[in-house]
Amino acid sequence: MQQRKSNLKSQQAGQPASGELALLQTIRARAAAIPSAKSRSGVRLGIGDDCALLRLKAGEELAVTTDLSLEGRHFRLDWHPPESVGHRALARGLSDLAAMGARPVAAFLSLGLPRELTISSGRKRAWVERFLDGMLALAAEHKVPLAGGDLAESPLAVADIILTGAVPRGKALLRSGARPGDRIYVTGNLGGAAVELAALGRSPRDFAKSTDASKTAPHLYPQPRIAQGLWLRKHSAASAAMDLSDGLSTDLTHLCDESGVAAEIDVASLPLGKGATLEMALHGGEDYELLFTAPRTTKLPRTIAGVAITPIGRMISPKRKQPRVILLTQTGSQPLEPHGWEHFSGSR
Amino acid sequence: MQQRKSNLKSQQAGQPASGELALLQTIRARAAAIPSAKSRSGVRLGIGDDCALLRLKAGEELAVTTDLSLEGRHFRLDWHPPESVGHRALARGLSDLAAMGARPVAAFLSLGLPRELTISSGRKRAWVERFLDGMLALAAEHKVPLAGGDLAESPLAVADIILTGAVPRGKALLRSGARPGDRIYVTGNLGGAAVELAALGRSPRDFAKSTDASKTAPHLYPQPRIAQGLWLRKHSAASAAMDLSDGLSTDLTHLCDESGVAAEIDVASLPLGKGATLEMALHGGEDYELLFTAPRTTKLPRTIAGVAITPIGRMISPKRKQPRVILLTQTGSQPLEPHGWEHFSGSR
Repeated sequence: MQQRKSNLKSQQAGQPASGELALLQTIRARAAAIPSAKSRSGVRLGIGDDCALLRLKAGEELAVTTDLSLEGRHFRLDWHPPESVGHRALARGLSDLAAMGARPVAAFLSLGLPRELTISSGRKRAWVERFLDGMLALAAEHKVPLAGGDLAESPLAVADIILTGAVPRGKALLRSGARPGDRIYVTGNLGGAAVELAALGRSPRDFAKSTDASKTAPHLYPQPRIAQGLWLRKHSAASAAMDLSDGLSTDLTHLCDESGVAAEIDVASLPLGKGATLEMALHGGEDYELLFTAPRTTKLPRTIAGVAITPIGRMISPKRKQPRVILLTQTGSQPLEPHGWEHFSGSR
Repeated sequence: MQQRKSNLKSQQAGQPASGELALLQTIRARAAAIPSAKSRSGVRLGIGDDCALLRLKAGEELAVTTDLSLEGRHFRLDWHPPESVGHRALARGLSDLAAMGARPVAAFLSLGLPRELTISSGRKRAWVERFLDGMLALAAEHKVPLAGGDLAESPLAVADIILTGAVPRGKALLRSGARPGDRIYVTGNLGGAAVELAALGRSPRDFAKSTDASKTAPHLYPQPRIAQGLWLRKHSAASAAMDLSDGLSTDLTHLCDESGVAAEIDVASLPLGKGATLEMALHGGEDYELLFTAPRTTKLPRTIAGVAITPIGRMISPKRKQPRVILLTQTGSQPLEPHGWEHFSGSR
């Protein structure tokens, strides 16, 4: 067993660029090339020392989130193009920042990979190179530099992404601020990621070379709602917010729990993604849209930064022995049980 | 395949505490119980939302480091007691903060575990409970709260630890500040971890129930040099610093590279750990001592916070075609090649 650690913290100049060193040099060089990262970011010291150093503006606090992506659990090497794996890993973290109304400051990546994923052969680029393509393209779009991380050889592909963001003190959007009477909103539409995932499972080969990071690929290339979160925070428009990662049924239950309220959802109002069933919209998960609440008196635009804002229901007072979330249909009402993904539980 | 994420960010009250939820509740409750975390820390919002929120004092900047620990690579389930795995994961991150002269602010944990490691049976506590024992005992000692993270089921045990710390702006100890003429120092002694690792490999059973987080167990329970790093930073005593994780030969080469200098080491001056050979002290790694430099005119005490400080050599001007690090012995000099661990390279 080898016990030593090995990281993005140092680089041995003058040594042959092989193995991890080569990968480290690749990452360091590519991270440094992210457009305008230097000018806008709060990164005072990036890859190359024991820690990175971040600086905030006066009156800001730091938001931190980590998201672990595991081969076979969050992605499959035989289903997902490497660009998508990189994009999605970063998108998960950016979506958490969006839900707090934070501006991205820096990303960190702890990466464990089987050796074969680091090797290029002839014209075929290494898996990790394409993974970085996807991750760094999204990083560049949101001007978030990759400021550090760790590398290790691993029998299983593992990518832990850490996002840091800045938000004015006391102004972050929390899950705990919803009150009875508030309206419930979502950005974009729901269930589209589940539709695409189902198609991917049926025919992975059709997606193998997909590098289309457009809004038409909600599963492979989800678009974190950074601009919408910032808008809501700057306008003090939302009483509570979170991102929709586990599915509306599960995430709305979380929001109700943290706020100490219950919720009613108008089924007819749900914005369904292309081809999505109601089931997919309620439980599909991974849409990475924002779920938020606002007082009834707050007037919201129909779109924020080009993305639709849809009212889907309202918060109500919680009652004993009543379900947290109630679904209102044309014919009556029924409880909406959380059916999001839970690890270690053995069931959905 | 299940694609949804699942994290330390939310908790469903009123639901049966099973699977991940139970583990999440355990971690959240135990993290909240860390002594005096609330009073001293900069954590404004911990586990339970999309992100944690950290607040720094005026004039501080944030240090961030990530360290990935993988089963079979950084620890072995059949060698290391779970308490040691938890302790070591956190110690690696704290040691990076120590090397910057930063005070710990908050830790984050992304944890992937096989289901069987989360299950207790009869009197036998779950592996993860004992892992948390080790991690949170060290966290309590350094008053660093666990403020967030992520959970997933995984065929391989994976723990990515993220440490954040605070340091006055522009005052962090860097790798790049060493100058020709500076003396080179180490804290504590070297090679002790390699001695203990060798003993562990010969007879893992003797260590199976070891929960001795004392300074006599340098491999299983390394002591991060937070107090020493803070002392050096507060006294502006060090021109450069890093932690010794990969072994003196490798780490000193890194420091020389980042500072643009070369180094001479006096073999006779090296403080050897109990039972350690010179080879172990030079290349053994994982001692988690501090390696630092200071101008010749700087007077340093023999101990800092109870740990010995030993001068081991000096920085010199780099010369073309000369080795970065030279070993001075009684009979002459020889180049010291870096033999630290490198992933993906296939050799040490």
